[in-house]
Amino acid sequence: MKNFLLVVVLVSAALSMTAAEGKWTPQQVLELDRAWLKEEGLELPPERLWDPRSGTGLFSATISTGGCSGGFVSAEGLFVTNHHCLFGVLQEHATPQNDLIAKGFVARARGEELRSKTLRVTMPRRFTDVTTDVLAAVPKNATDAQRSRAIERKSAAIVASCEKQARTRCRVAAHDGGLQYVLQEMTEFDDVRLVYAPPRAVGEFGGEVDNWMWPRHTGDFAIGRVYFNGAPYKPDFFFPIAKEGVKPDDFVMVLGYPGVTYRALTAAEMEERRIWFERRANVYREWISLMERTTAGSPEGAIAVADLSKTLANRQKNAEGQLAGFARWSTISKQRALEAQIKTPALAGLQTVANEKIAAFDHDFLLDHVRMTGNSLALTGPKSLIWAVAVARAATERAKADTERDDVFAARNITRVRDRIEREQKSFYAPADKAHLASFVKMALALPQGQRIAAIDRVFANTDVNARIDQLYANSKLLNLSDRLAMFDMTAAQLQARRDPLVDLGFALSTEISAMNERRDGWEGAISRLRPEWRRAAIAHAGRPIAPDANSTLRVSFAHVKGYQPRDGVWFNPQTTLDGVLEKHTNAEPFDVPDAILTAAATRFDGPWRDPRLKDVPVAFLSDADTTGGNSGSPTINGRGELVGVNFDRVWENVSNDFAYLPLVGRNINADVRYMLWILERVEKAEGLLKELGVR
Amino acid sequence: MKNFLLVVVLVSAALSMTAAEGKWTPQQVLELDRAWLKEEGLELPPERLWDPRSGTGLFSATISTGGCSGGFVSAEGLFVTNHHCLFGVLQEHATPQNDLIAKGFVARARGEELRSKTLRVTMPRRFTDVTTDVLAAVPKNATDAQRSRAIERKSAAIVASCEKQARTRCRVAAHDGGLQYVLQEMTEFDDVRLVYAPPRAVGEFGGEVDNWMWPRHTGDFAIGRVYFNGAPYKPDFFFPIAKEGVKPDDFVMVLGYPGVTYRALTAAEMEERRIWFERRANVYREWISLMERTTAGSPEGAIAVADLSKTLANRQKNAEGQLAGFARWSTISKQRALEAQIKTPALAGLQTVANEKIAAFDHDFLLDHVRMTGNSLALTGPKSLIWAVAVARAATERAKADTERDDVFAARNITRVRDRIEREQKSFYAPADKAHLASFVKMALALPQGQRIAAIDRVFANTDVNARIDQLYANSKLLNLSDRLAMFDMTAAQLQARRDPLVDLGFALSTEISAMNERRDGWEGAISRLRPEWRRAAIAHAGRPIAPDANSTLRVSFAHVKGYQPRDGVWFNPQTTLDGVLEKHTNAEPFDVPDAILTAAATRFDGPWRDPRLKDVPVAFLSDADTTGGNSGSPTINGRGELVGVNFDRVWENVSNDFAYLPLVGRNINADVRYMLWILERVEKAEGLLKELGVR
Repeated sequence: MKNFLLVVVLVSAALSMTAAEGKWTPQQVLELDRAWLKEEGLELPPERLWDPRSGTGLFSATISTGGCSGGFVSAEGLFVTNHHCLFGVLQEHATPQNDLIAKGFVARARGEELRSKTLRVTMPRRFTDVTTDVLAAVPKNATDAQRSRAIERKSAAIVASCEKQARTRCRVAAHDGGLQYVLQEMTEFDDVRLVYAPPRAVGEFGGEVDNWMWPRHTGDFAIGRVYFNGAPYKPDFFFPIAKEGVKPDDFVMVLGYPGVTYRALTAAEMEERRIWFERRANVYREWISLMERTTAGSPEGAIAVADLSKTLANRQKNAEGQLAGFARWSTISKQRALEAQIKTPALAGLQTVANEKIAAFDHDFLLDHVRMTGNSLALTGPKSLIWAVAVARAATERAKADTERDDVFAARNITRVRDRIEREQKSFYAPADKAHLASFVKMALALPQGQRIAAIDRVFANTDVNARIDQLYANSKLLNLSDRLAMFDMTAAQLQARRDPLVDLGFALSTEISAMNERRDGWEGAISRLRPEWRRAAIAHAGRPIAPDANSTLRVSFAHVKGYQPRDGVWFNPQTTLDGVLEKHTNAEPFDVPDAILTAAATRFDGPWRDPRLKDVPVAFLSDADTTGGNSGSPTINGRGELVGVNFDRVWENVSNDFAYLPLVGRNINADVRYMLWILERVEKAEGLLKELGVR
Repeated sequence: MKNFLLVVVLVSAALSMTAAEGKWTPQQVLELDRAWLKEEGLELPPERLWDPRSGTGLFSATISTGGCSGGFVSAEGLFVTNHHCLFGVLQEHATPQNDLIAKGFVARARGEELRSKTLRVTMPRRFTDVTTDVLAAVPKNATDAQRSRAIERKSAAIVASCEKQARTRCRVAAHDGGLQYVLQEMTEFDDVRLVYAPPRAVGEFGGEVDNWMWPRHTGDFAIGRVYFNGAPYKPDFFFPIAKEGVKPDDFVMVLGYPGVTYRALTAAEMEERRIWFERRANVYREWISLMERTTAGSPEGAIAVADLSKTLANRQKNAEGQLAGFARWSTISKQRALEAQIKTPALAGLQTVANEKIAAFDHDFLLDHVRMTGNSLALTGPKSLIWAVAVARAATERAKADTERDDVFAARNITRVRDRIEREQKSFYAPADKAHLASFVKMALALPQGQRIAAIDRVFANTDVNARIDQLYANSKLLNLSDRLAMFDMTAAQLQARRDPLVDLGFALSTEISAMNERRDGWEGAISRLRPEWRRAAIAHAGRPIAPDANSTLRVSFAHVKGYQPRDGVWFNPQTTLDGVLEKHTNAEPFDVPDAILTAAATRFDGPWRDPRLKDVPVAFLSDADTTGGNSGSPTINGRGELVGVNFDRVWENVSNDFAYLPLVGRNINADVRYMLWILERVEKAEGLLKELGVR
């Protein structure tokens, strides 16, 4: 293993054309042009962001909650993130008698802080380039599938060795599909407590209506504390609060763990993703209305499917935004034009992979909806099928050596699957699930030849689908929680002896999923050969540093507070105010401002949290930071490393920045830290907390 | 009769606080502070706007189409107005073989211009204060009802005498309910021809979706020509085209014939109007969905009710805007606070009238939907009842002396009623009308005691309403066009002998309408006593000139090109561009840009109609002019009297300016003359027209 060094060409002139583009790795920041960074507004030496020798710097104050980002804000382990990122902790502690979700929560003393049973956070410690090591594990003349599995096994071995260190979580991250493999070493904390959460009507103000939208007035922030050995953890670095906040054109940085972007894809691969969003937009639209129809008149049904409906709605709206972006910005044809200027045989290879994926697209799209993976936090297929597949695959995979298993069924992960099929019982409502399954089956039965799902054909072809589903339901024990959990622990032989028709269907689907995974291993192997080659050519062509695609590893984006023109005749200011909260107030969800806020708002024109330019308390602001999902809760800091906001969303026109940075509309949405402070002071009178945050 | 002179206090400081407030009469303009007008941006001496001795000036270039405004733009009688104002002429000439409505129209030579059979325009000639004359006609000790009728009769006599002049249309207009009576003398032209109309997809671009909205991209303009003795009319004044257009902050004037505003009302009367909008919002919402339901699956039904649905939708949206404005700006409580500072017994009197109106509100609201008047261009009640009432009232009123009749049935007007009940046959679709009538009847049956409609009770109380309506329909000849027209010419005795159940219902309703009119005469008489007193007190209190409420007489508003903040975080620029037209293009109504525009748009970045600041062809612009319905087609001119645009709408947030000028959001929408010129040049190649417009 050697320490990280990526050769990049420093061309600050080219950089400044799209200054805010790039989710930079800690290592890359040290290689960027210092003069350019200073000119942009960074007042600190770049080493204050990250010192690779000590594994400290402001980057180390940027934590991950596994899905969300966060940032330390006090010397005693306080951290800020989004309200929606700590929502689970509120759920753990809320009771009908004490509805913390609705009311919000403030710990008035350390002893009142609410510990989470499940939430863990990690803090970065070391990044090591392991590219040579990983690639050395690939046998000569390996097929693509063999190559893929060799890389996977080697990565797993490196992780296993790394995790022998105490309180350590490790991961080998492939940047840009294998251009570089970096071992990420993180310190893990399992004692995380809730310190402050606003009322839901503040933290989710605007709900689905305002989701992805500007102007925004959501107080999507919350405060937690990390404990270590039963005492508040004392981080080396934290972000002090910038009491004066931000104003238009101010330099800001957004730090965090962005999830997935697709900018290293070729035009052909982008087209495959475009199809994916198109299917999501259409299929999810159908499923959303199906959930509405099947739970109409049943409050119990509506509660059960609420989470699924919300996930579908969010992904559906995102997909619509992605499609609108493809159309508006001609992303794919621009990418194609770029490729025409770059000569590399990798392009043809990647085109072949993309063609193969597209040829199998609808088949794989459906199977992906019933197949658990480490990434799919919320599967949106019918629960009956998801459970059938999970039970069958658990049995099949458990019979293999641990390193050979489908990763989600590996020993270190399998209990999470069991937890999930237990927890999901509360989201099961038979009439909705039957209709969901019927819709899934009908889509499968409509697949073209060559993409048929044999398991579905066998059970449903030439039958009355609804009647057949009624039969399956009546003759299966799978939908009963205790039976299902018992089945989860059985062997394949035991399960098959039960002749449970849903579980039998699960086995048949599982076989097809394994075949699909096999196919995908081949694609992954090919991509791990081809992508680095293509990417090197593209970076050389650009003649400037390019950040790798997001892959849930730590990044920073350099940006400015900036409005934008969403459409002809309209200018969106980069800041919103409390006045806008009152303006949106309707007394009804999702615009139901709590009385305490309404009362306190009367005195908002004095006090330290009033912005002198806006003449009001600021609520949210835009910057042109390059973010994506996973950046939720990211600390947004100024050029001196002080906290000015908490990132929580992108604007609608910027949803499709996953494929290309969009300078004209590339805006992320940050909760203004002054809104949080104003609430803590004027509404919650949380003086102790304000003191610890250093504003008293 | 004496020449007009209104004593006003000139306080330019107070004026400049809400500079753009006021729809000034020609006479008032001459009394405003000349220095202030100059400072605002008027480069001409005010006498160029109006010379009362000669009856000429730019005001005389401002014509009325009876409902819309327009302005002369050439020495040979060309005038501009809105597309929707000349839509009727397109309808007259469109055929299935030559669909001028869809394609639009350009006359390539004088001989091709399309003469309208019905459209008349008037041009102002003289304004004379007849207050003394009118009031002298009121007998001593007259009751309020007698007072009202005396004023009406005297006004009619003055008009009759005035109209003895050739080609002259006259009217006695009461400003602010009788503070002043002004005889309006207009020259009438009955030969009006269509010269240019854009395709419907340009003239109605955005349709109902964009109606009342900004940013706007509608090319709502058209050109006509006035003929006199068979030759183009040569007006003394016309508005030359301002080739350079406008830019933000430019001074502009909007001239025209605004219809009705309510600013001289007291708080109690505004509350009565608020209730009116509330009823419109709710009742029309119901009727809109009823039209949809009853015509679903019937293209023929949908076409028949299209006009009614459009009128209902437009009024419903307007009503929602008015209600939103009342709520947002606290209009009524502000008015109440103002009244608390002004002492006059008139307030109590007006309060009594308002209370009486409110006590009878729902009863009168329903009857107003079936009662024809001179003002209600489009009645939105069920046609069966409207026709029944019209036939019955025609017979009853015709039996009276002409001066005693309900004005709409007076000899000079009655053929218009007959025309209407003929023309409306094409809008009749029995299933929709039955449901409409049923809804009307159910509302009537739900009225509280004291507001019952006896005629409805008699026919419908304690019956199955729908079955009863089927019976009425089956046993009536009224719905048959030729029978109905024959009935319209019969006497009451002849009609009653027919025992037609719908006509019988018409007679019964007519009796109640007469009683309602009687009541209203009393209110009008009281208001003609009280309003002037209240208004004098309010003007004295304001200490500055105040323009009278709009009443379809000629006015001018002084304004500037200006954007606004519709809500927190959003700024609406005052100009839109062709780029925005393309941005909205969906290929489907109401956003279906014609191919010819799409093609021409490729070359929009050169040529004289490109705005150097916007770097594009401008399409529409906002100004803070004080406008209302009736200002459609108003010429918008710069400080030198040159045409820069054609007014066609207000913004949503400004719908409620009828009750108070709203400086923060008070914006009217103008089509930019350069968009029209660009289309004429690049799309239509109408060189002859461009030459006559003086831009070649």
